[in-house]
Amino acid sequence: MTHIHATHEEGAALTWPTGFRAYTGHGGLRDRGDDISIVASDRPAVSAAMFTRSRFAGPAVLLSRAHAAGQHLRALCTLAKNANVATGRQGEENAAEVVHRVAGILDIPENEVLIGSTGVIGRPLPMDTIRTHLDETAQRGPAAFEAGPLEVARAMMTTDTRPKTAVRTVGPARIVGVAKGVGMLEPDMATMLAYLFTDAALSPADLDTALRGAVEKTFNCLSVDTDTSTSDTVAVIANGAAGPVDFAAFSLALADLCLDLTTQLAGDGEGATKLLRVTVGRAGDYEQAKRVAKTVVNSPLVKTAVHGADPNWGRVVMAIGKNTDDTDIDPNKVTVRFGAIEVYPREPEPDTLDQLVDIMGRDEVDITITLGLGDATATVYGCDLSEGYIRVNADYTS
Amino acid sequence: MTHIHATHEEGAALTWPTGFRAYTGHGGLRDRGDDISIVASDRPAVSAAMFTRSRFAGPAVLLSRAHAAGQHLRALCTLAKNANVATGRQGEENAAEVVHRVAGILDIPENEVLIGSTGVIGRPLPMDTIRTHLDETAQRGPAAFEAGPLEVARAMMTTDTRPKTAVRTVGPARIVGVAKGVGMLEPDMATMLAYLFTDAALSPADLDTALRGAVEKTFNCLSVDTDTSTSDTVAVIANGAAGPVDFAAFSLALADLCLDLTTQLAGDGEGATKLLRVTVGRAGDYEQAKRVAKTVVNSPLVKTAVHGADPNWGRVVMAIGKNTDDTDIDPNKVTVRFGAIEVYPREPEPDTLDQLVDIMGRDEVDITITLGLGDATATVYGCDLSEGYIRVNADYTS
Repeated sequence: MTHIHATHEEGAALTWPTGFRAYTGHGGLRDRGDDISIVASDRPAVSAAMFTRSRFAGPAVLLSRAHAAGQHLRALCTLAKNANVATGRQGEENAAEVVHRVAGILDIPENEVLIGSTGVIGRPLPMDTIRTHLDETAQRGPAAFEAGPLEVARAMMTTDTRPKTAVRTVGPARIVGVAKGVGMLEPDMATMLAYLFTDAALSPADLDTALRGAVEKTFNCLSVDTDTSTSDTVAVIANGAAGPVDFAAFSLALADLCLDLTTQLAGDGEGATKLLRVTVGRAGDYEQAKRVAKTVVNSPLVKTAVHGADPNWGRVVMAIGKNTDDTDIDPNKVTVRFGAIEVYPREPEPDTLDQLVDIMGRDEVDITITLGLGDATATVYGCDLSEGYIRVNADYTS
Repeated sequence: MTHIHATHEEGAALTWPTGFRAYTGHGGLRDRGDDISIVASDRPAVSAAMFTRSRFAGPAVLLSRAHAAGQHLRALCTLAKNANVATGRQGEENAAEVVHRVAGILDIPENEVLIGSTGVIGRPLPMDTIRTHLDETAQRGPAAFEAGPLEVARAMMTTDTRPKTAVRTVGPARIVGVAKGVGMLEPDMATMLAYLFTDAALSPADLDTALRGAVEKTFNCLSVDTDTSTSDTVAVIANGAAGPVDFAAFSLALADLCLDLTTQLAGDGEGATKLLRVTVGRAGDYEQAKRVAKTVVNSPLVKTAVHGADPNWGRVVMAIGKNTDDTDIDPNKVTVRFGAIEVYPREPEPDTLDQLVDIMGRDEVDITITLGLGDATATVYGCDLSEGYIRVNADYTS
């Protein structure tokens, strides 16, 4: 990836690509701190987006899916702390009203606005304070749009412990991403939102292709607790302000940026103390590699072993064995490594045990499996399972 | 089930059906306490058995599966604390040698012996102490076979906190079951073994039909942590000593006994403080009902909510929504109840909140869902997710 400049700017200095501006404010969804954010292009743009497949997707997703189909989104708006899911007809009307007001502020068509909602399920949006707030923002006009990516990432957080941003450059253009991950402040659920903005000029079809390719190997390879949010959304807006770019280079940069955000999200999973990266190689095909890797990264017994820094390869082979429909998996062909050290079938030498304990004790733990069936490889991203996960999700009384 | 007498004898007084006898002893697999057990019929018998589908099934399962195929098992032998899984060629030879010695003690063909192993993965069996022990047992002869079901259930335990037994009567016959559940003492995995013994006279085909019917709706509806053991085994031996029984009554009694053991296993899941029972009704078919119920009972966010006694129905609808391939699931048709109180779509009245908190605080929590799609119903059994689960599985250093 020699033609990609992975510029890791300091978060505070991070700016939007040319032609984007953003707003954050406090709309009364959380007790204090900004909870509403809007990022918009000052000119028409093309877009691509992907949404949760949950059967309980909320009105924000349903409305945004319809708008995204036009491939000309120009603004992404987020409400944090309330998912507006399972809120009935009123929830649909509230989502539509927010979109209507945001479109009014920006003076763009409603169907160029995507709305994301993340937080508690089954509770109505506090429309009184949201309305008041958006009215004030409309009166302030463009002057209200002075927020940078870090402020937006922070305004999107629920139980995230830190804001997530990333940037890459491609020729004359930049791609900036903000994301929020798995977290809860109240009885709700894991929710992942990732928004990407670029001033590169691309066709909607190319943008869609690049996004799908990137998401398949990054966000779709992320699992913190197997629970699928009703609100998951990934969207990219390209406004062309920087001119055309090489498509292959753009795709690589976009995928690399998504991988950056994915590992940030995995490492900040609820209660997580470590990033867990599982690679399955020599699989029959990519789907098999990913399927087996996911059973390992999602196994509570593997996750607790990683938490305890225990090089417990027995749990890894157990998790591989869970793929009961993969009848071609043969224990006699499988190998397992922690870091660079093989633990199955050749048991580690006693003098490597110290190394193994060291490997398992790091902030990032790599487990590599080969199936001996073919040439396909997949990597998935997760985290350990700790008492902190239980605390954040159980120690609440309604 | 008026023709089934569900006799809950006191564990200490529980005896085997006519013609069965058992042995337990300390073979050096655990530091102290009995860890080897054998239950045998004193006459030829018929049998049925079901095994884990894990791709990493160990030699005990592979050997037992071959023997069980003959439908004439007469003895079940269990080694606790060592799963003898992923132990290579030596593991196969060790399992075969144990079977050979047990068959010798009982003077029956080797292929009438089933062997179960449960515990740590990847460690060789301590064959020296096992050999010595089985030699001594052979010398003691029938006098060594004086153990009751409670002793056998106890000798099978790994991190179970209590032995699991159950008994039912059917006409002149009895069915006695012993089981062990999900637990770890060392780096290994969840393992479930359930052995059932009856003096009823049945054909192998009828016994197999009754067992498969019972297991499908009981043990196969049990999930503590989604991790599939390499050693799961359910086996039933019928020696006919009590004569023929009504097949329908036997099937119901067997299923009822399996349900009893299943709830005992769920309630003693690792770190469990509560039994969680999820019923999905009005599903399109039984498979859908069970699939949806399993996503709810396995959701870490639902499990932690149950642990925290939090009537968090948002997490339940999220979990239902995870069934993304069930495109007929419609949020507008779904209902959710905690105990008898509807929480979705009609939110509970404020004056029922105390009741809800009471319901969620009980030792057994029932969540009932209807999909509004058909007539099928399934119930699955699990437990809450607590700090105790993390402690028992993470706080180990190799």
